[in-house]
Amino acid sequence: MPITRPTAPRIQEMAESFGMAFSLEESGEYLELMAANFDAYDVVDALPDYVAPVKYPRVPGYRPYGEENKYNAWACKSEVKGAPGGKLAGKTVALKDNVSLAGVPMMNGASTLEGFVPTIDATIVTRMLDAGATIVGKAVCEHFCLSGGSHTSDPGAVHNPHKMGYSAGGSSSGSAALVAAGDVDMAIGGDQGGSIRIPAAYCGIYGMKATYGLVPYTGVMPIEATIDHTGPMTATVADNALLLEVLAGADGLDPRQYAPKVSAYTEALGKGVDGLKIGVLKEGFDLPNMQPGVADKVKAGAERFSAMGASVEEISLPEHPLTAAVWQPIALEGLVVQMMIGNGMGFNWKGQYDVSLLDAHSAWTDRADELSKTLKLSMLVGQWGLSHYRGRYYAKAQNLARRMKAAYDDAFAQYDLLLMPTLPVVATKLPEKDAPLSEVIMRAFEMVGATCQFDVTGHPAMSIPCGLSDGLPVGLMLASKDYGEATIYQAAAAFEAQGDWKSF
Amino acid sequence: MPITRPTAPRIQEMAESFGMAFSLEESGEYLELMAANFDAYDVVDALPDYVAPVKYPRVPGYRPYGEENKYNAWACKSEVKGAPGGKLAGKTVALKDNVSLAGVPMMNGASTLEGFVPTIDATIVTRMLDAGATIVGKAVCEHFCLSGGSHTSDPGAVHNPHKMGYSAGGSSSGSAALVAAGDVDMAIGGDQGGSIRIPAAYCGIYGMKATYGLVPYTGVMPIEATIDHTGPMTATVADNALLLEVLAGADGLDPRQYAPKVSAYTEALGKGVDGLKIGVLKEGFDLPNMQPGVADKVKAGAERFSAMGASVEEISLPEHPLTAAVWQPIALEGLVVQMMIGNGMGFNWKGQYDVSLLDAHSAWTDRADELSKTLKLSMLVGQWGLSHYRGRYYAKAQNLARRMKAAYDDAFAQYDLLLMPTLPVVATKLPEKDAPLSEVIMRAFEMVGATCQFDVTGHPAMSIPCGLSDGLPVGLMLASKDYGEATIYQAAAAFEAQGDWKSF
Repeated sequence: MPITRPTAPRIQEMAESFGMAFSLEESGEYLELMAANFDAYDVVDALPDYVAPVKYPRVPGYRPYGEENKYNAWACKSEVKGAPGGKLAGKTVALKDNVSLAGVPMMNGASTLEGFVPTIDATIVTRMLDAGATIVGKAVCEHFCLSGGSHTSDPGAVHNPHKMGYSAGGSSSGSAALVAAGDVDMAIGGDQGGSIRIPAAYCGIYGMKATYGLVPYTGVMPIEATIDHTGPMTATVADNALLLEVLAGADGLDPRQYAPKVSAYTEALGKGVDGLKIGVLKEGFDLPNMQPGVADKVKAGAERFSAMGASVEEISLPEHPLTAAVWQPIALEGLVVQMMIGNGMGFNWKGQYDVSLLDAHSAWTDRADELSKTLKLSMLVGQWGLSHYRGRYYAKAQNLARRMKAAYDDAFAQYDLLLMPTLPVVATKLPEKDAPLSEVIMRAFEMVGATCQFDVTGHPAMSIPCGLSDGLPVGLMLASKDYGEATIYQAAAAFEAQGDWKSF
Repeated sequence: MPITRPTAPRIQEMAESFGMAFSLEESGEYLELMAANFDAYDVVDALPDYVAPVKYPRVPGYRPYGEENKYNAWACKSEVKGAPGGKLAGKTVALKDNVSLAGVPMMNGASTLEGFVPTIDATIVTRMLDAGATIVGKAVCEHFCLSGGSHTSDPGAVHNPHKMGYSAGGSSSGSAALVAAGDVDMAIGGDQGGSIRIPAAYCGIYGMKATYGLVPYTGVMPIEATIDHTGPMTATVADNALLLEVLAGADGLDPRQYAPKVSAYTEALGKGVDGLKIGVLKEGFDLPNMQPGVADKVKAGAERFSAMGASVEEISLPEHPLTAAVWQPIALEGLVVQMMIGNGMGFNWKGQYDVSLLDAHSAWTDRADELSKTLKLSMLVGQWGLSHYRGRYYAKAQNLARRMKAAYDDAFAQYDLLLMPTLPVVATKLPEKDAPLSEVIMRAFEMVGATCQFDVTGHPAMSIPCGLSDGLPVGLMLASKDYGEATIYQAAAAFEAQGDWKSF
């Protein structure tokens, strides 16, 4: 079907929107000369779309209720069996509900996307199925992933398996809860400001945000391409390393991947930490809302590494808090341009676009009142930067991101790992339905300043459970140089081998 | 200085622009909770910008008139002496006026940018200076590079050194004219739809659009990142290969560069064409405006390659015209988003942003009537795709670009080179100042359908002069697989060694 041509009045209207004075006659003249352009659009329209093929049969599944969905962590239970054998044979996996699984509904925590059924599989879905995994469903995630607390999803708050009524963390809230509750072996999360590591810390599991671009993001709904990450959330270090081994590597479709370097992560396990140099990051503890109980457990974790044979000393990196500031214009203006105005795709990049997601997501523009308070606040800050400052702080922040990365690179030249608390706090009480705006916002963003640095620099960072504070899990974060995931796993496995972390 | 905070009414206004119903009270409540976000903006504001340093002293220069600027090809004469020795020692270079040379005015052919003086050097500027080149000034280019004819620049039309009053081609019009006139040894051009190859063909010089991402685009004003290319325009093949050798390679600042592979291009010269397999692309001749005189010269060129020992045969690639259609949504929607609305930078990419160019270029929004007719037409087509179709054809075209690239890749698995006319026409008469809109548009875009394919696929393509038709130069285009520039130079040098192309 030929695409609709504009009329002369519409040309005039668009010209006016750009600030061009066009007469109706002139508009008609221009319109006539656009014939060849629109003919080209017809050619594009008539050609079949060109995306990676979907493999393995699947069923739409169902949304479980009651005891079957105690923590409200399941968005949808389904079953997609992968290859008969492979590295993930026998493993069950849940996907964060911003990961496309063809034929199974995806709403990314937002009512405006409800009813959307993807037609493509994310690259990581295909990789896991090819490796023999069984994908058992989609995990609830926060409203368009815009919260570090688990209270913003339109399907309802996700509860922490360690304590009902408490936050599971976000935005990969359901993914963490399902792993912590033992409903699945593994889950996929996403991390733009900490969204893998935050719920991993709150729920006491292992969450890895790998090096920027190591895991292909193709087929996962983006927020802002320069900080988008997806990756493994598991109950054990070995499963985490195994899953990353399957996920990692270039797919030729993701513009975030610049010649990523892959390793055999599982081979790093069981090697101990003898000789590893660990820097305990002073600024990682210097947060206004740092809970002493959390700091103590993380410091005890550092001492444990020392006792195990690692060289452990304090390091100061003044760029750490600055990097958290740099994250703000990148995330907030970036999300307006790419996720919202850019219809969940954005522009000006080579790779695979999901046209049907783009079509479906554009519904938000007519239903903006339904957007979450956290997203509204984020969009309005971003829009101020875009409209009043024309995006100059976004641009400057991208330049500063390189300076910040260079500072961490210097630190990683001296230390194999940096160690710090994943978060300043343990899981907090879920806000009530009618909670004041200030509480909704605080519970969503109070912890992001601890994790977002490595989304800006792209360095890998993993949260590992290191004890309980007030009966709730504490996360210890290990970060390394680019593509240093194997070293992180080496240390995490040695730590895990020390015994039940809940007794640490 | 702290950044300006919005007021509650401004928050309300922005919310409304997104379709959110916000009371003034609610707006104030949100504003209060944005304090931490804006504090972060203050931190970003207070930090010094972080860009690559400028080397070598320079003077602003002057705009020459009269006999000193006979073809109106100089935007500005300056002099920046590079290192005392190096591969380009003794060579003079002119830059297309969309390439940043700190301290020297840049207007990219557009009155709205007049008065802007860059504070950064493009990566390729630093590379040429480090290699001993002397940069002697900026060459006039078309209005924001949006024309294949040389009649749209605000500093006035550029004349073809082969015939006054005739088009030099665009958009790197001045670059080609300066080389053809012998004013400089080498010039830098840019190519998003053919803008290096078109003026090279019209002016009878050598113009190489190298593989996408081979030459860093950092510091060159973009149109749309997925088709942006910059590269060498020279009077000889040897100079072209030499210049590319200096320009090529990753700079760590350009998101277009995915592990580019560099070769020693000058070593490919003097090897003849024995054993090379050349496919003469049937569809490259099947253009409605193909001039028989042009087709004949290009076919004669193909026969010459055969006589020199290459294996030459016809090949058909039905994707060739389709790829030209795919270019349209990518270029036209992409330029609205990145070059215009995106303030000459765009968003959602990692790399070096030029904040002062962003600030200066945003002047267009208050002076849109000054934009060229070609740009207006392009923006309006693009805006129709963006507003009426929410960019879905842009997205689909990016997917189809991969299919098209795969088809050419198959051809390049069989042939070392594809050969075709660079353009269907020779240089045409420059439109008069009061020419009708239809003529202005036709003379700008009539040839783009012959060249834009390799901007979509990213394959390298070079125009080499192969004879005269009606006394005006004819260009023959050679294309190769990704990073196959050395093979193109090998063939081009052998062709050049046959004697004066004007007598071919």
